[in-house]
Amino acid sequence: MKTKNNLDFLSDYSTLVNTEINQLLSSRQDYLMYDMMRYFFGFCDENFRKTNFYGGKKLRPGICLLIADFYGIKNECIPIASAIEIFHNFTLIHDDIEDRDELRRGRPTVWKLWGINHGINTGDAQLVLSNIELSKIDSEPIKNVKKIKNLFNECFLGIIEGQFLDFALEEKQLSDIQVNFDSYIKMITRKCALLYGLSAKSVGYAAGKPDTESDYLWQFGLNFGIAFQIFDDMMSIWGTEEKTGKSELGDIIERKKSLPIILYYDNCSDLEKSNLEKLYSSDKEISYNEANSIKQLLNDNKIYSLVWEKMNFYVKLSNEAIESLSVKNEDKEILRRFNDFLLSEAERIKC
Amino acid sequence: MKTKNNLDFLSDYSTLVNTEINQLLSSRQDYLMYDMMRYFFGFCDENFRKTNFYGGKKLRPGICLLIADFYGIKNECIPIASAIEIFHNFTLIHDDIEDRDELRRGRPTVWKLWGINHGINTGDAQLVLSNIELSKIDSEPIKNVKKIKNLFNECFLGIIEGQFLDFALEEKQLSDIQVNFDSYIKMITRKCALLYGLSAKSVGYAAGKPDTESDYLWQFGLNFGIAFQIFDDMMSIWGTEEKTGKSELGDIIERKKSLPIILYYDNCSDLEKSNLEKLYSSDKEISYNEANSIKQLLNDNKIYSLVWEKMNFYVKLSNEAIESLSVKNEDKEILRRFNDFLLSEAERIKC
Repeated sequence: MKTKNNLDFLSDYSTLVNTEINQLLSSRQDYLMYDMMRYFFGFCDENFRKTNFYGGKKLRPGICLLIADFYGIKNECIPIASAIEIFHNFTLIHDDIEDRDELRRGRPTVWKLWGINHGINTGDAQLVLSNIELSKIDSEPIKNVKKIKNLFNECFLGIIEGQFLDFALEEKQLSDIQVNFDSYIKMITRKCALLYGLSAKSVGYAAGKPDTESDYLWQFGLNFGIAFQIFDDMMSIWGTEEKTGKSELGDIIERKKSLPIILYYDNCSDLEKSNLEKLYSSDKEISYNEANSIKQLLNDNKIYSLVWEKMNFYVKLSNEAIESLSVKNEDKEILRRFNDFLLSEAERIKC
Repeated sequence: MKTKNNLDFLSDYSTLVNTEINQLLSSRQDYLMYDMMRYFFGFCDENFRKTNFYGGKKLRPGICLLIADFYGIKNECIPIASAIEIFHNFTLIHDDIEDRDELRRGRPTVWKLWGINHGINTGDAQLVLSNIELSKIDSEPIKNVKKIKNLFNECFLGIIEGQFLDFALEEKQLSDIQVNFDSYIKMITRKCALLYGLSAKSVGYAAGKPDTESDYLWQFGLNFGIAFQIFDDMMSIWGTEEKTGKSELGDIIERKKSLPIILYYDNCSDLEKSNLEKLYSSDKEISYNEANSIKQLLNDNKIYSLVWEKMNFYVKLSNEAIESLSVKNEDKEILRRFNDFLLSEAERIKC
C-alpha cells in the first residue's frame, strides 16, 4: 500500500482524522454553526446533505500519525492530529474572509455562503474546538502532556503572528527595504511552517522521546513546511489551475509578494524593477495577459531555478533532520517521501 | 474601602488584572498586533503612547478575584481572572466587527482604526493568549486544574454558540414564533451570562470546594449575568448616553430584538404589533424621533415594569445562591452588592 512515488499512503490517517472530527462535531448541540463546519471539512454539502469525505492530502495530521505509527502510539495521537487539522481549518476560514477568497478546494467559502459574521464566528468556535480535542490527551501512554499543550499554544500564537506579518508585507511597497527574502522566510515560517513543525515534534513529546529526537522532528517538519510554501509559490506561477485548484497566475494577479516575485525584483534590471513597482502599486486590476508577461520576464531571468534552489535548501535541511532520527531506515525512507514529493512535483512544472 | 453602595472596591482587583495582562502582552515579540491589543485594553492610545489604565468595572475578573479573596487564593487566581478578561476582550473585538460598531468605551474600535483583517487577527491572537494565560495555573495551591480547563473550554464554546444564536435571532422576523422570551434568555445566557458563571465557579474548583459550593457559585454568577444583560437592555432604552457610553435608544435604532421590544410586542395591540413589524422589517434607517416614539409606546404599555420583573427574577435566583454559599455573612453581603447594584441603577432610570 505504501508505494514509493506518492503520498497516497496518508489516506488511512486521513480517514482516522476525518472520523474523529466528524464525531466531535456531531456530539455538539444542533446548531447550524456546526453544520457550517461540517460543510467546510467536506462532510456535507452546502445544504447539509451528507457527502463523502473529501479534501486535500491532510499532510499535517498525516505527518503526525505517521510518526506516531513509527513510535507505536498511532491511535493515542489521533486527538493531537485532529486538533492540528481543526486549527488549520480555522485559519483557512478566517484567511478566506481576510483575502475575500470565494473558493476553497473548489467549493464556495463559508463567508461567501453564509456571510462574514458567520465566517468569523464559525472560525472562532473551531479554534476552541481544537483545544477541546487536544484536551483528550490527558492520560497514558501519552507523555509530556503539559509540554505538548504549551507547544500547541506557542505555535498557534506564532501562526497568527505569521498572518500579521503577511498583512504587514502586503501593506509595504515592493521597493521597501523590509520586503526581502528574510522577511518572506520569517513570515512563511510562522504562517505556514510552524504547523508542520508542531505536527512532528508534538509526537516526539507524546512518545516520551529525548528532547534531541523531538528537536530533529521539529527540524524535519519546519523545514519541510518552509519548502512546501516555496513550492506552493512556484505552483501559482508555473502550475496549472487543474493541478493547484487555484486561478492560474493568481499570486501575480493578486499582487502577492511571493518568493518568485521577490527574487525577480532582486535580480532584474532597474527598468524592470520600475515597471513591476508601477504594476504592483497601481489601482488597476492586473489582467491575465499582464500577469503572463511578468511570468515571461521571470522565465527570461531564470527565476524558476533560483526559487528551486531556495526550496531545495530547506528540503535538504529537512532530509538531514530525518537522518538524525532514531527511527528505522525504512521509516526514514517514508519520511523522505514528503520532500521527494516536492522535488518531483516541482520537476513536472520545470521551465 | 469597601463602601456599601457601589462596586468601587473592585478597583484593586482590576489593577491586579491590568498589570498581569500588560505584562503578558509586553512579554511577546515586538509586533504591532500586540500594540493593538494594548490599545484595546486601554494601556496606550491609538498611536501606542502609554496611557493610564482605564476602562470598565471589570466585573468578571472582579467577581473571580473577590471570591478567590474569600477563599484565601486571590493571587493564585490572577491567571484565571486575567484569562477570562482576555477572552471577554477577544469577543468584543470580533463583536465590534460583526456589528460594525465604530466606538467602544468611547474610543474607536480596532477594526475602525486598523481594518477588519487586523481586527479578526488580533481577536484570534487574544483567544490563544487567553489559553496561554490560563496555562499558568498548573500548580498548587490551585486544585482541579483539569476541571477548570474543561469548564473554560465549554464556556468559551458556549459563548460563541450564544453569538451564533444572536445572529439567528437577528435574522428572524419579530413575528416569527421562535422570537420569544425563552429564545432570548437562551441566547443571553450563552452569549453574556456564561462568562459570569465561569468567573465564579472556576474559583470554587480552584479552591477545592465541594461540587455543591461550586454549583452555587455558578448559580450566583450565571443568574447575575442574565440579570445584568436584561439591565443592559433597559439602559439602552431608558438610560442616557452619558451613563451607558452608547448611543441613546441605540437598540431600537439598530432594530435589536432586546427584551423590552420582545415584551412590548407580546403585550401590545394588533395594530401596534403590525406597526412595529413594519418598522423593524423596513430598509429605511430608524430616526431618533421614530425610536423615541417607540419608547413612548413602551412606556404607555408599562414595559419598564415587565422588564424590571424579569430582571428581578434572576436577581433573586442569584441572591438565593449566595445564601447557600459556605462563606462568611459579611462576604455574602459583599456578593449581594452586585445584584443590589443592578436594582439601584435600574431604580435611577425608573419611568
